[in-house]
Amino acid sequence: MLNDFELEKEKASDWFLNLRKNIIESFERIEDSYTQETGLEKLAGRFSVKKTKRNGSQESDNGGGIMSVMRGGRVFEKVGVNVSTVYGPLDDRIKKLMRARRKIIRNDKIVNFWASGISVVAHMQNPQCPAVHMNTRMFWTPDTWWFGGGTDLNPSIEKAADIDFFHTALKDCCDRHDKTYYPKFKKWADDYFYIPHRNIARGVGGIFFDDLSTDWSRNFTFTQDVGKTFLSTFTEILNRRMNEKWTDADKDGQLIYRGLYSEYNLIYDRGTKFGLESGHDPDAVLMSLPPMVKWY
Amino acid sequence: MLNDFELEKEKASDWFLNLRKNIIESFERIEDSYTQETGLEKLAGRFSVKKTKRNGSQESDNGGGIMSVMRGGRVFEKVGVNVSTVYGPLDDRIKKLMRARRKIIRNDKIVNFWASGISVVAHMQNPQCPAVHMNTRMFWTPDTWWFGGGTDLNPSIEKAADIDFFHTALKDCCDRHDKTYYPKFKKWADDYFYIPHRNIARGVGGIFFDDLSTDWSRNFTFTQDVGKTFLSTFTEILNRRMNEKWTDADKDGQLIYRGLYSEYNLIYDRGTKFGLESGHDPDAVLMSLPPMVKWY
Repeated sequence: MLNDFELEKEKASDWFLNLRKNIIESFERIEDSYTQETGLEKLAGRFSVKKTKRNGSQESDNGGGIMSVMRGGRVFEKVGVNVSTVYGPLDDRIKKLMRARRKIIRNDKIVNFWASGISVVAHMQNPQCPAVHMNTRMFWTPDTWWFGGGTDLNPSIEKAADIDFFHTALKDCCDRHDKTYYPKFKKWADDYFYIPHRNIARGVGGIFFDDLSTDWSRNFTFTQDVGKTFLSTFTEILNRRMNEKWTDADKDGQLIYRGLYSEYNLIYDRGTKFGLESGHDPDAVLMSLPPMVKWY
Repeated sequence: MLNDFELEKEKASDWFLNLRKNIIESFERIEDSYTQETGLEKLAGRFSVKKTKRNGSQESDNGGGIMSVMRGGRVFEKVGVNVSTVYGPLDDRIKKLMRARRKIIRNDKIVNFWASGISVVAHMQNPQCPAVHMNTRMFWTPDTWWFGGGTDLNPSIEKAADIDFFHTALKDCCDRHDKTYYPKFKKWADDYFYIPHRNIARGVGGIFFDDLSTDWSRNFTFTQDVGKTFLSTFTEILNRRMNEKWTDADKDGQLIYRGLYSEYNLIYDRGTKFGLESGHDPDAVLMSLPPMVKWY
Protein backbone atom coordinates (compact mmCIF):
# COMPACT_ATOMS: atom_id res chain seq x y z
CA MET A 1 0.00 0.00 0.00
CA LEU A 2 2.64 2.52 1.02
CA ASN A 3 4.41 2.36 -2.34
CA ASP A 4 1.33 3.88 -3.87
CA PHE A 5 1.49 6.89 -1.61
CA GLU A 6 2.81 9.25 -4.29
CA LEU A 7 -0.70 10.45 -5.08
CA GLU A 8 -1.54 11.19 -1.44
CA LYS A 9 1.73 13.04 -0.97
CA GLU A 10 0.97 15.16 -4.00
CA LYS A 11 -2.56 15.91 -2.79
CA ALA A 12 -1.24 16.97 0.60
CA SER A 13 1.56 19.20 -0.68
CA ASP A 14 -0.82 20.75 -3.25
CA TRP A 15 -3.25 21.56 -0.47
CA PHE A 16 -0.59 23.28 1.62
CA LEU A 17 0.34 25.43 -1.40
CA ASN A 18 -3.32 26.22 -2.00
CA LEU A 19 -3.87 27.20 1.64
CA ARG A 20 -0.74 29.35 1.49
CA LYS A 21 -2.19 31.25 -1.48
CA ASN A 22 -5.49 31.85 0.31
CA ILE A 23 -3.78 33.06 3.48
CA ILE A 24 -1.49 35.43 1.62
CA GLU A 25 -4.36 36.92 -0.39
CA SER A 26 -6.52 37.32 2.72
CA PHE A 27 -3.78 38.96 4.75
CA GLU A 28 -2.91 41.40 1.94
CA ARG A 29 -6.63 42.30 1.64
CA ILE A 30 -6.64 43.02 5.39
CA GLU A 31 -3.71 45.39 4.92
CA ASP A 32 -5.74 47.19 2.24
CA SER A 33 -8.86 47.49 4.38
CA TYR A 34 -7.17 49.11 7.40
CA THR A 35 -8.64 52.54 8.16
CA GLN A 36 -7.18 53.67 11.52
CA GLU A 37 -5.06 56.82 11.37
CA THR A 38 -2.02 55.36 13.22
CA GLY A 39 -0.04 53.53 10.59
CA LEU A 40 -2.12 54.64 7.60
CA GLU A 41 0.86 56.72 6.43
CA LYS A 42 2.50 53.38 5.60
CA LEU A 43 1.90 51.50 2.38
CA ALA A 44 -0.32 48.46 2.75
CA GLY A 45 1.98 45.54 3.59
CA ARG A 46 2.91 42.95 0.99
CA PHE A 47 4.60 39.58 1.30
CA SER A 48 8.12 39.07 0.06
CA VAL A 49 8.80 35.55 -1.09
CA LYS A 50 11.97 33.47 -0.90
CA LYS A 51 12.70 29.87 -1.84
CA THR A 52 14.32 27.91 0.97
CA LYS A 53 16.49 24.81 0.89
CA ARG A 54 17.22 22.05 3.32
CA ASN A 55 20.83 21.00 3.77
CA GLY A 56 20.16 17.35 4.44
CA SER A 57 22.58 14.48 4.61
CA GLN A 58 22.57 14.13 0.83
CA GLU A 59 24.64 16.30 -1.47
CA SER A 60 21.79 16.60 -3.91
CA ASP A 61 18.09 17.28 -3.47
CA ASN A 62 16.75 17.26 0.10
CA GLY A 63 13.66 19.31 -0.61
CA GLY A 64 12.87 22.85 0.38
CA GLY A 65 10.09 25.33 0.57
CA ILE A 66 8.72 28.79 0.09
CA MET A 67 9.06 31.37 2.85
CA SER A 68 6.75 34.35 2.59
CA VAL A 69 7.11 37.16 5.06
CA MET A 70 5.31 40.49 5.37
CA ARG A 71 7.19 42.95 7.56
CA GLY A 72 6.19 46.34 8.89
CA GLY A 73 2.67 46.36 7.49
CA ARG A 74 -0.22 48.49 8.77
CA VAL A 75 -1.84 45.56 10.56
CA PHE A 76 0.86 42.89 10.54
CA GLU A 77 4.12 43.84 12.23
CA LYS A 78 5.52 40.55 10.96
CA VAL A 79 3.74 37.54 9.55
CA GLY A 80 5.39 34.51 8.04
CA VAL A 81 3.79 31.81 5.94
CA ASN A 82 6.13 28.90 5.28
CA VAL A 83 5.41 25.86 3.17
CA SER A 84 7.94 23.12 2.74
CA THR A 85 8.22 19.64 1.30
CA VAL A 86 11.36 17.88 2.50
CA TYR A 87 12.63 14.34 2.05
CA GLY A 88 15.68 12.14 2.09
CA PRO A 89 17.28 9.63 4.42
CA LEU A 90 16.56 10.13 8.12
CA ASP A 91 19.67 10.81 10.14
CA ASP A 92 20.47 8.35 12.91
CA ARG A 93 19.29 10.49 15.80
CA ILE A 94 15.89 11.21 14.26
CA LYS A 95 15.64 7.56 13.18
CA LYS A 96 16.09 6.52 16.81
CA LEU A 97 13.35 8.92 17.93
CA MET A 98 11.04 7.65 15.20
CA ARG A 99 11.63 4.05 16.13
CA ALA A 100 10.72 4.92 19.72
CA ARG A 101 7.50 6.50 18.38
CA ARG A 102 6.84 3.38 16.23
CA LYS A 103 7.09 5.36 13.02
CA ILE A 104 9.70 2.96 11.71
CA ILE A 105 9.30 -0.77 12.04
CA ARG A 106 11.56 -2.31 9.41
CA ASN A 107 15.27 -2.47 10.12
CA ASP A 108 16.58 -0.99 6.85
CA LYS A 109 19.93 0.75 6.93
CA ILE A 110 18.65 3.79 5.08
CA VAL A 111 15.15 4.98 5.87
CA ASN A 112 13.73 7.73 3.74
CA PHE A 113 11.17 10.16 5.02
CA TRP A 114 8.94 12.71 3.39
CA ALA A 115 7.24 15.62 5.12
CA SER A 116 5.13 18.46 3.83
CA GLY A 117 3.43 21.21 5.74
CA ILE A 118 2.46 24.80 6.25
CA SER A 119 3.30 27.04 9.16
CA VAL A 120 1.90 30.50 9.89
CA VAL A 121 2.89 32.88 12.66
CA ALA A 122 1.52 36.43 12.87
CA HIS A 123 2.71 39.20 15.18
CA MET A 124 0.48 42.25 15.04
CA GLN A 125 1.10 46.01 15.15
CA ASN A 126 -2.01 46.61 17.25
CA PRO A 127 -1.87 44.97 20.70
CA GLN A 128 -5.69 44.74 20.57
CA CYS A 129 -5.15 42.00 17.96
CA PRO A 130 -3.83 38.65 19.19
CA ALA A 131 -0.74 36.97 17.79
CA VAL A 132 -1.52 33.58 16.27
CA HIS A 133 0.16 30.38 15.21
CA MET A 134 -1.11 27.64 12.87
CA ASN A 135 0.71 24.63 11.52
CA THR A 136 -0.45 21.49 9.73
CA ARG A 137 1.68 18.80 8.18
CA MET A 138 1.76 15.33 6.70
CA PHE A 139 4.64 13.03 7.55
CA TRP A 140 5.53 9.81 5.75
CA THR A 141 7.99 6.97 6.31
CA PRO A 142 7.99 3.62 4.45
CA ASP A 143 6.17 2.09 7.42
CA THR A 144 3.49 4.65 8.16
CA TRP A 145 2.16 8.16 7.63
CA TRP A 146 0.45 10.66 9.86
CA PHE A 147 -1.02 14.14 10.05
CA GLY A 148 -0.34 16.65 12.77
CA GLY A 149 -0.86 20.29 13.50
CA GLY A 150 -2.64 22.83 15.55
CA THR A 151 -3.36 26.46 16.12
CA ASP A 152 -3.25 28.67 19.19
CA LEU A 153 -4.04 32.29 20.03
CA ASN A 154 -1.60 34.56 21.85
CA PRO A 155 -3.30 37.81 22.91
CA SER A 156 -1.32 40.22 25.11
CA ILE A 157 -4.68 41.81 25.96
CA GLU A 158 -7.15 38.99 26.62
CA LYS A 159 -10.66 39.56 25.28
CA ALA A 160 -13.21 36.96 26.34
CA ALA A 161 -15.28 37.44 23.16
CA ASP A 162 -12.32 36.67 20.87
CA ILE A 163 -11.12 33.73 22.93
CA ASP A 164 -14.64 32.20 22.96
CA PHE A 165 -15.06 32.82 19.24
CA PHE A 166 -11.73 31.11 18.47
CA HIS A 167 -12.36 28.07 20.68
CA THR A 168 -15.96 27.68 19.45
CA ALA A 169 -14.88 27.74 15.82
CA LEU A 170 -12.26 25.07 16.54
CA LYS A 171 -14.79 22.97 18.43
CA ASP A 172 -17.24 23.20 15.49
CA CYS A 173 -14.45 22.26 13.11
CA CYS A 174 -13.43 19.23 15.17
CA ASP A 175 -17.04 18.13 15.73
CA ARG A 176 -17.69 18.08 11.98
CA HIS A 177 -15.16 15.22 11.76
CA ASP A 178 -15.15 13.36 15.06
CA LYS A 179 -16.87 14.22 18.34
CA THR A 180 -13.91 12.89 20.31
CA TYR A 181 -11.42 15.27 18.64
CA TYR A 182 -12.12 18.59 20.35
CA PRO A 183 -11.78 17.61 24.01
CA LYS A 184 -8.68 15.57 23.19
CA PHE A 185 -7.01 18.15 20.93
CA LYS A 186 -7.87 21.11 23.18
CA LYS A 187 -6.28 19.39 26.16
CA TRP A 188 -3.29 18.48 24.00
CA ALA A 189 -2.85 22.18 23.13
CA ASP A 190 -3.11 23.13 26.81
CA ASP A 191 -0.42 20.59 27.66
CA TYR A 192 1.77 21.36 24.65
CA PHE A 193 1.70 25.18 24.53
CA TYR A 194 2.94 25.39 28.09
CA ILE A 195 6.09 26.95 29.52
CA PRO A 196 7.24 24.73 32.41
CA HIS A 197 10.02 27.03 33.59
CA ARG A 198 7.53 29.87 34.09
CA ASN A 199 4.67 27.61 35.07
CA ILE A 200 2.26 29.36 32.68
CA ALA A 201 0.63 28.77 29.30
CA ARG A 202 2.24 30.64 26.42
CA GLY A 203 -1.17 31.86 25.21
CA VAL A 204 -4.85 31.04 25.58
CA GLY A 205 -4.69 27.69 23.79
CA GLY A 206 -6.47 26.22 20.81
CA ILE A 207 -5.98 22.71 19.44
CA PHE A 208 -2.98 20.48 18.88
CA PHE A 209 -2.85 17.01 17.33
CA ASP A 210 -0.22 14.61 16.11
CA ASP A 211 0.10 11.00 14.93
CA LEU A 212 -3.36 11.17 13.30
CA SER A 213 -3.31 8.08 11.16
CA THR A 214 -6.65 6.29 10.99
CA ASP A 215 -8.00 6.84 7.47
CA TRP A 216 -5.98 8.93 5.03
CA SER A 217 -8.86 10.67 3.27
CA ARG A 218 -10.74 11.49 6.44
CA ASN A 219 -7.60 12.65 8.27
CA PHE A 220 -6.63 14.78 5.28
CA THR A 221 -10.08 16.37 5.09
CA PHE A 222 -9.86 17.21 8.79
CA THR A 223 -6.38 18.71 8.36
CA GLN A 224 -7.70 20.86 5.51
CA ASP A 225 -10.61 22.00 7.67
CA VAL A 226 -8.24 23.07 10.47
CA GLY A 227 -6.42 25.32 7.99
CA LYS A 228 -9.63 26.81 6.61
CA THR A 229 -11.10 27.34 10.08
CA PHE A 230 -7.93 29.06 11.25
CA LEU A 231 -8.02 31.44 8.30
CA SER A 232 -11.68 32.44 8.52
CA THR A 233 -11.59 32.78 12.32
CA PHE A 234 -8.40 34.79 12.56
CA THR A 235 -9.33 37.19 9.76
CA GLU A 236 -12.70 37.75 11.46
CA ILE A 237 -10.93 38.61 14.76
CA LEU A 238 -8.65 41.03 12.90
CA ASN A 239 -11.57 42.68 11.16
CA ARG A 240 -13.19 43.23 14.55
CA ARG A 241 -10.09 44.53 16.35
CA MET A 242 -7.59 46.07 13.97
CA ASN A 243 -9.11 49.55 13.99
CA GLU A 244 -9.35 49.78 17.80
CA LYS A 245 -7.08 52.37 19.46
CA TRP A 246 -4.14 51.39 21.66
CA THR A 247 -1.75 53.11 24.04
CA ASP A 248 2.04 53.03 24.40
CA ALA A 249 1.56 50.99 27.56
CA ASP A 250 -0.49 48.43 25.56
CA LYS A 251 2.34 48.19 23.03
CA ASP A 252 4.95 47.79 25.75
CA GLY A 253 2.87 45.04 27.31
CA GLN A 254 2.71 43.29 23.94
CA LEU A 255 6.51 43.45 23.48
CA ILE A 256 7.04 41.90 26.91
CA TYR A 257 4.32 39.28 26.31
CA ARG A 258 6.18 38.26 23.13
CA GLY A 259 9.04 37.05 25.34
CA LEU A 260 6.90 34.05 26.26
CA TYR A 261 6.43 33.15 22.62
CA SER A 262 10.16 33.48 21.94
CA GLU A 263 11.16 31.42 24.96
CA TYR A 264 8.65 28.72 24.04
CA ASN A 265 9.75 28.45 20.43
CA LEU A 266 13.47 28.43 21.11
CA ILE A 267 13.34 26.05 24.09
CA TYR A 268 10.38 23.70 23.54
CA ASP A 269 8.76 23.86 20.09
CA ARG A 270 9.01 20.53 18.24
CA GLY A 271 8.81 22.01 14.76
CA THR A 272 11.61 24.46 15.53
CA LYS A 273 13.82 21.70 16.92
CA PHE A 274 13.11 19.43 13.94
CA GLY A 275 13.74 22.26 11.49
CA LEU A 276 17.06 23.36 13.01
CA GLU A 277 18.32 19.83 13.56
CA SER A 278 17.34 18.59 10.11
CA GLY A 279 19.29 21.41 8.48
CA HIS A 280 16.53 23.61 7.07
CA ASP A 281 17.25 27.30 6.41
CA PRO A 282 17.43 28.87 9.92
CA ASP A 283 15.75 32.07 8.72
CA ALA A 284 12.75 30.03 7.60
CA VAL A 285 12.64 27.93 10.78
CA LEU A 286 12.96 31.00 13.00
CA MET A 287 10.51 33.04 10.92
CA SER A 288 8.18 32.54 13.92
CA LEU A 289 10.23 34.81 16.18
CA PRO A 290 8.64 38.19 16.87
CA PRO A 291 9.92 41.28 15.04
CA MET A 292 10.61 42.98 18.37
CA VAL A 293 10.67 41.64 21.92
CA LYS A 294 11.37 43.10 25.33
CA TRP A 295 12.68 41.14 28.28
CA TYR A 296 12.35 43.03 31.52
CA MET B 1 39.13 14.87 52.56
CA LEU B 2 35.84 15.92 51.01
CA ASN B 3 34.07 16.09 54.35
CA ASP B 4 36.35 18.99 55.25
CA PHE B 5 35.22 20.93 52.21
CA GLU B 6 33.02 23.30 54.20
CA LEU B 7 35.83 25.84 54.45
CA GLU B 8 36.56 25.79 50.70
CA LYS B 9 32.88 26.14 49.91
CA GLU B 10 32.66 29.15 52.20
CA LYS B 11 35.76 30.74 50.65
CA ALA B 12 34.34 30.29 47.16
CA SER B 13 30.86 31.65 47.92
CA ASP B 14 32.40 34.59 49.85
CA TRP B 15 34.54 35.39 46.83
CA PHE B 16 31.56 35.43 44.47
CA LEU B 17 29.80 37.85 46.85
CA ASN B 18 32.89 40.01 47.02
CA LEU B 19 33.26 40.08 43.23
CA ARG B 20 29.57 40.93 42.93
CA LYS B 21 30.09 43.96 45.19
CA ASN B 22 33.06 45.18 43.14
CA ILE B 23 31.21 44.78 39.85
CA ILE B 24 28.16 46.62 41.10
CA GLU B 25 30.19 49.51 42.48
CA SER B 26 32.24 49.78 39.27
CA PHE B 27 29.21 49.73 37.01
CA GLU B 28 27.39 52.37 39.07
CA ARG B 29 30.52 54.58 38.91
CA ILE B 30 30.49 54.18 35.12
CA GLU B 31 26.90 55.42 35.06
CA ASP B 32 28.02 58.49 37.06
CA SER B 33 30.94 59.23 34.74
CA TYR B 34 28.95 59.28 31.48
CA THR B 35 29.16 62.66 29.75
CA GLN B 36 27.60 62.23 26.29
CA GLU B 37 24.48 64.35 25.66
CA THR B 38 22.27 61.49 24.44
CA GLY B 39 20.92 59.85 27.57
CA LEU B 40 22.30 62.41 30.02
CA GLU B 41 18.74 63.54 30.72
CA LYS B 42 18.32 60.21 32.53
CA LEU B 43 19.38 59.62 36.12
CA ALA B 44 22.54 57.56 36.48
CA GLY B 45 21.43 53.91 36.59
CA ARG B 46 21.36 52.00 39.84
CA PHE B 47 20.98 48.29 40.56
CA SER B 48 17.81 46.93 42.07
CA VAL B 49 18.33 43.85 44.17
CA LYS B 50 16.11 40.83 44.73
CA LYS B 51 16.66 37.60 46.64
CA THR B 52 15.97 34.50 44.56
CA LYS B 53 15.04 30.99 45.59
CA ARG B 54 15.46 27.60 44.05
CA ASN B 55 12.48 25.26 44.09
CA GLY B 56 14.40 22.05 44.43
CA SER B 57 13.14 18.60 45.17
CA GLN B 58 13.08 19.31 48.91
CA GLU B 59 10.26 21.16 50.64
CA SER B 60 12.72 23.09 52.75
CA ASP B 61 15.96 24.89 51.94
CA ASN B 62 17.42 24.37 48.44
CA GLY B 63 19.55 27.48 48.43
CA GLY B 64 19.08 30.64 46.46
CA GLY B 65 20.81 33.78 45.45
CA ILE B 66 20.85 37.50 44.89
CA MET B 67 19.77 38.92 41.56
CA SER B 68 20.88 42.48 40.88
CA VAL B 69 19.67 44.21 37.74
CA MET B 70 20.21 47.72 36.45
CA ARG B 71 17.72 48.69 33.76
CA GLY B 72 17.49 51.70 31.49
CA GLY B 73 20.71 53.37 32.65
CA ARG B 74 22.72 55.93 30.70
CA VAL B 75 25.38 53.38 29.70
CA PHE B 76 23.81 50.04 30.59
CA GLU B 77 20.52 49.27 28.86
CA LYS B 78 20.27 46.18 31.06
CA VAL B 79 22.91 44.48 33.15
CA GLY B 80 22.35 41.60 35.52
CA VAL B 81 24.70 40.33 38.20
CA ASN B 82 23.51 37.09 39.76
CA VAL B 83 25.15 35.20 42.58
CA SER B 84 23.72 31.97 43.88
CA THR B 85 24.60 29.15 46.20
CA VAL B 86 22.36 26.14 45.71
CA TYR B 87 22.40 22.66 47.18
CA GLY B 88 20.30 19.60 47.89
CA PRO B 89 19.81 16.17 46.42
CA LEU B 90 20.49 15.84 42.70
CA ASP B 91 17.48 14.80 40.71
CA ASP B 92 17.73 11.56 38.76
CA ARG B 93 18.23 13.08 35.35
CA ILE B 94 21.07 15.34 36.44
CA LYS B 95 22.52 12.47 38.47
CA LYS B 96 22.69 10.38 35.32
CA LEU B 97 24.46 13.17 33.43
CA MET B 98 26.93 13.63 36.29
CA ARG B 99 27.69 9.94 36.42
CA ALA B 100 28.45 10.03 32.71
CA ARG B 101 30.81 12.95 33.38
CA ARG B 102 32.41 10.99 36.31
CA LYS B 103 31.30 13.56 38.82
CA ILE B 104 29.64 10.85 40.88
CA ILE B 105 31.33 7.56 41.57
CA ARG B 106 29.63 6.12 44.64
CA ASN B 107 26.28 4.46 44.19
CA ASP B 108 24.35 6.23 46.98
CA LYS B 109 20.60 6.59 46.58
CA ILE B 110 20.63 10.25 47.47
CA VAL B 111 23.51 12.34 46.20
CA ASN B 112 23.76 15.89 47.45
CA PHE B 113 25.37 18.61 45.40
CA TRP B 114 26.48 22.12 46.17
CA ALA B 115 27.14 24.85 43.62
CA SER B 116 28.03 28.48 43.96
CA GLY B 117 28.75 31.03 41.29
CA ILE B 118 28.43 34.44 39.76
CA SER B 119 27.02 35.37 36.40
CA VAL B 120 27.14 38.74 34.68
CA VAL B 121 25.51 39.76 31.42
CA ALA B 122 25.54 43.36 30.17
CA HIS B 123 23.60 44.80 27.24
CA MET B 124 24.61 48.37 26.43
CA GLN B 125 22.71 51.48 25.31
CA ASN B 126 25.52 52.53 22.97
CA PRO B 127 26.17 50.07 20.11
CA GLN B 128 29.81 51.25 20.12
CA CYS B 129 30.11 49.31 23.42
CA PRO B 130 30.11 45.51 23.22
CA ALA B 131 27.74 43.31 25.19
CA VAL B 132 29.58 40.97 27.53
CA HIS B 133 29.09 37.79 29.53
CA MET B 134 31.12 36.43 32.45
CA ASN B 135 30.38 33.48 34.67
CA THR B 136 32.49 31.56 37.20
CA ARG B 137 31.39 28.83 39.54
CA MET B 138 32.45 26.09 41.91
CA PHE B 139 30.59 22.78 41.88
CA TRP B 140 30.82 20.08 44.53
CA THR B 141 29.53 16.52 44.89
CA PRO B 142 30.63 14.05 47.59
CA ASP B 143 33.01 12.50 45.08
CA THR B 144 34.66 15.52 43.55
CA TRP B 145 34.64 19.27 43.01
CA TRP B 146 35.48 21.50 40.10
CA PHE B 147 35.62 25.09 38.89
CA GLY B 148 34.26 26.34 35.63
CA GLY B 149 33.50 29.58 33.90
CA GLY B 150 34.38 31.94 31.14
CA THR B 151 33.80 35.27 29.54
CA ASP B 152 33.07 36.38 25.99
CA LEU B 153 32.59 39.65 24.16
CA ASN B 154 29.61 40.34 21.89
CA PRO B 155 30.10 43.54 19.90
CA SER B 156 27.54 44.40 17.22
CA ILE B 157 30.18 46.78 15.80
CA GLU B 158 33.51 44.94 15.82
CA LYS B 159 36.53 47.05 16.78
CA ALA B 160 39.87 45.31 16.37
CA ALA B 161 41.47 47.34 19.18
CA ASP B 162 38.85 46.25 21.74
CA ILE B 163 38.87 42.64 20.63
CA ASP B 164 42.69 42.49 20.85
CA PHE B 165 42.67 44.21 24.22
CA PHE B 166 40.11 41.72 25.60
CA HIS B 167 41.89 38.62 24.28
CA THR B 168 45.32 39.87 25.39
CA ALA B 169 44.08 40.54 28.92
CA LEU B 170 42.63 37.03 29.09
CA LYS B 171 45.85 35.54 27.74
CA ASP B 172 47.89 37.40 30.38
CA CYS B 173 45.47 36.24 33.07
CA CYS B 174 45.70 32.60 31.96
CA ASP B 175 49.49 32.74 31.55
CA ARG B 176 49.91 33.95 35.13
CA HIS B 177 48.54 30.57 36.26
CA ASP B 178 49.39 28.01 33.61
CA LYS B 179 50.84 28.48 30.14
CA THR B 180 48.65 25.70 28.77
CA TYR B 181 45.40 27.42 29.81
CA TYR B 182 44.97 30.16 27.23
CA PRO B 183 45.21 28.15 23.99
CA LYS B 184 42.97 25.47 25.49
CA PHE B 185 40.39 27.81 27.02
CA LYS B 186 40.27 30.14 24.02
CA LYS B 187 39.54 27.22 21.70
CA TRP B 188 36.94 25.95 24.17
CA ALA B 189 35.20 29.34 24.01
CA ASP B 190 35.30 29.28 20.20
CA ASP B 191 33.73 25.82 20.22
CA TYR B 192 31.25 26.57 23.00
CA PHE B 193 29.94 30.04 22.07
CA TYR B 194 28.92 28.82 18.65
CA ILE B 195 25.50 28.72 17.00
CA PRO B 196 25.36 25.54 14.88
CA HIS B 197 21.99 26.30 13.27
CA ARG B 198 23.35 29.58 11.86
CA ASN B 199 26.88 28.27 11.42
CA ILE B 200 28.39 31.34 13.11
CA ALA B 201 29.93 32.32 16.44
CA ARG B 202 27.63 34.22 18.78
CA GLY B 203 30.32 36.85 19.40
CA VAL B 204 34.09 37.28 19.12
CA GLY B 205 35.00 34.72 21.78
CA GLY B 206 37.03 34.84 24.94
CA ILE B 207 37.74 31.91 27.25
CA PHE B 208 35.68 29.03 28.57
CA PHE B 209 36.74 26.31 31.02
CA ASP B 210 35.02 23.56 32.98
CA ASP B 211 35.96 20.55 35.13
CA LEU B 212 39.04 22.37 36.47
CA SER B 213 39.98 20.17 39.40
CA THR B 214 43.73 19.77 39.89
CA ASP B 215 44.59 21.73 43.05
CA TRP B 216 41.84 23.55 44.91
CA SER B 217 43.80 26.62 45.98
CA ARG B 218 45.45 27.15 42.62
CA ASN B 219 42.21 26.57 40.69
CA PHE B 220 40.38 28.95 43.03
CA THR B 221 43.03 31.65 42.57
CA PHE B 222 42.74 31.29 38.81
CA THR B 223 38.93 31.52 38.98
CA GLN B 224 39.25 34.71 41.06
CA ASP B 225 41.67 36.15 38.54
CA VAL B 226 39.24 35.51 35.67
CA GLY B 227 36.63 37.55 37.53
CA LYS B 228 39.03 40.40 38.28
CA THR B 229 40.40 40.43 34.72
CA PHE B 230 36.89 40.54 33.26
CA LEU B 231 35.99 43.51 35.45
CA SER B 232 39.07 45.63 34.79
CA THR B 233 39.07 44.87 31.05
CA PHE B 234 35.41 45.48 30.42
CA THR B 235 35.27 48.73 32.41
CA GLU B 236 38.32 49.94 30.44
CA ILE B 237 36.54 49.18 27.14
CA LEU B 238 33.46 51.06 28.36
CA ASN B 239 35.53 54.05 29.44
CA ARG B 240 37.02 54.18 25.94
CA ARG B 241 33.78 53.76 24.02
CA MET B 242 30.76 54.92 26.00
CA ASN B 243 30.98 58.56 24.95
CA GLU B 244 31.29 57.81 21.22
CA LYS B 245 28.36 58.87 19.01
CA TRP B 246 26.09 56.36 17.34
CA THR B 247 23.35 56.40 14.67
CA ASP B 248 19.85 54.89 14.54
CA ALA B 249 21.19 52.35 12.04
CA ASP B 250 23.89 51.33 14.56
CA LYS B 251 21.20 50.84 17.20
CA ASP B 252 19.05 48.81 14.84
CA GLY B 253 22.04 46.64 13.99
CA GLN B 254 22.62 46.07 17.71
CA LEU B 255 18.99 45.01 18.28
CA ILE B 256 19.21 42.48 15.43
CA TYR B 257 22.65 41.26 16.59
CA ARG B 258 21.10 40.56 20.02
CA GLY B 259 18.96 37.88 18.37
CA LEU B 260 22.07 35.68 18.21
CA TYR B 261 22.65 36.05 21.93
CA SER B 262 19.00 35.22 22.68
CA GLU B 263 18.94 32.18 20.39
CA TYR B 264 22.18 30.91 21.90
CA ASN B 265 21.07 31.28 25.49
CA LEU B 266 17.64 29.78 25.02
CA ILE B 267 18.75 26.86 22.82
CA TYR B 268 22.31 25.93 23.85
CA ASP B 269 23.60 27.60 27.03
CA ARG B 270 24.44 25.03 29.75
CA GLY B 271 23.89 27.39 32.68
CA THR B 272 20.46 28.39 31.39
CA LYS B 273 19.45 24.75 30.92
CA PHE B 274 20.75 23.78 34.38
CA GLY B 275 19.03 26.78 35.99
CA LEU B 276 15.63 26.19 34.38
CA GLU B 277 15.73 22.42 34.89
CA SER B 278 16.90 22.60 38.50
CA GLY B 279 14.00 24.88 39.40
CA HIS B 280 15.73 28.22 39.99
CA ASP B 281 13.73 31.45 39.65
CA PRO B 282 13.21 31.83 35.84
CA ASP B 283 13.58 35.62 36.06
CA ALA B 284 17.06 35.14 37.54
CA VAL B 285 18.04 32.44 35.05
CA LEU B 286 16.77 34.47 32.10
CA MET B 287 18.26 37.72 33.40
CA SER B 288 20.76 37.27 30.55
CA LEU B 289 18.17 37.96 27.86
CA PRO B 290 18.50 41.35 26.18
CA PRO B 291 16.11 44.17 27.14
CA MET B 292 15.05 44.54 23.51
CA VAL B 293 15.64 42.35 20.48
CA LYS B 294 14.65 42.48 16.83
CA TRP B 295 14.27 39.47 14.61
CA TYR B 296 14.10 40.39 10.95
